[in-house]
Amino acid sequence: MPDFMNMALREAEQASARGEVPVGAVLVAAGNRVIAQVGNRVEEWRDPTAHAEMLAIREGAKATGLGRLTDCDLYVTLEPCAMCAAAISFARLRRVYYAAYDPKGGGVDHGARFFTQPTCHHAPEVVSGMEEHKAAQLLKEFFSARR
Amino acid sequence: MPDFMNMALREAEQASARGEVPVGAVLVAAGNRVIAQVGNRVEEWRDPTAHAEMLAIREGAKATGLGRLTDCDLYVTLEPCAMCAAAISFARLRRVYYAAYDPKGGGVDHGARFFTQPTCHHAPEVVSGMEEHKAAQLLKEFFSARR
Repeated sequence: MPDFMNMALREAEQASARGEVPVGAVLVAAGNRVIAQVGNRVEEWRDPTAHAEMLAIREGAKATGLGRLTDCDLYVTLEPCAMCAAAISFARLRRVYYAAYDPKGGGVDHGARFFTQPTCHHAPEVVSGMEEHKAAQLLKEFFSARR
Repeated sequence: MPDFMNMALREAEQASARGEVPVGAVLVAAGNRVIAQVGNRVEEWRDPTAHAEMLAIREGAKATGLGRLTDCDLYVTLEPCAMCAAAISFARLRRVYYAAYDPKGGGVDHGARFFTQPTCHHAPEVVSGMEEHKAAQLLKEFFSARR
């Protein structure tokens, strides 16, 4: 199996080089087929909804022509926020792998904990902490260069 | 002042006519300037993120060239879900007016209650219940025709 989290980390590095908060995501369909491979575009597009996970879901939905991506797994370098967690639920993703924890903005294991809410009608399996150190290091470098 | 909630209700009616869950939204900038006027496109676009609020924010950001819509107010016919509530927060909207309550899927006064979370770094003023009956009736008719 390809190393999807490292692919997501490369997307995060490219996002950082574009001046974006370094977050990358890879969406994988059945048979290990990559259907989206994207980084954060919030600054470039001046679009507060252009988080990597949202772009992955939108690209994946377009690539498959399906609004529900039930066989798909998402690899993302940062804990999804509440916006992205809800989008992941609506898209019916099977599994979410995320790298770094985000106590300030996360919506999976922090804050809204969207998947545990009674208003959440599909919760993916969640695997956290994979390549956490690399993802956290990228974020740390990005913010220390800017502050 | 134009009746922005009734404009949003007309967008909801048009969404219903397209086979979409009837939700409409209007985004208003300073001076009562409408910068987005949209309905739900989830089915047509097969995009689970294409809620009216998300489209309004993306259109508004494009129209103004700004990622932060600090002077803007959103009128929406249904209580925003957690995805949309987080997007509203990221876009720094000033005020959100919503019509019908959504106990099953809402993320403002139900479920994630995103604006009350410690991970929420900007909460708009929220006004709920305006034209609630009309919006709820539209939703009721839509679902009763389909079940």
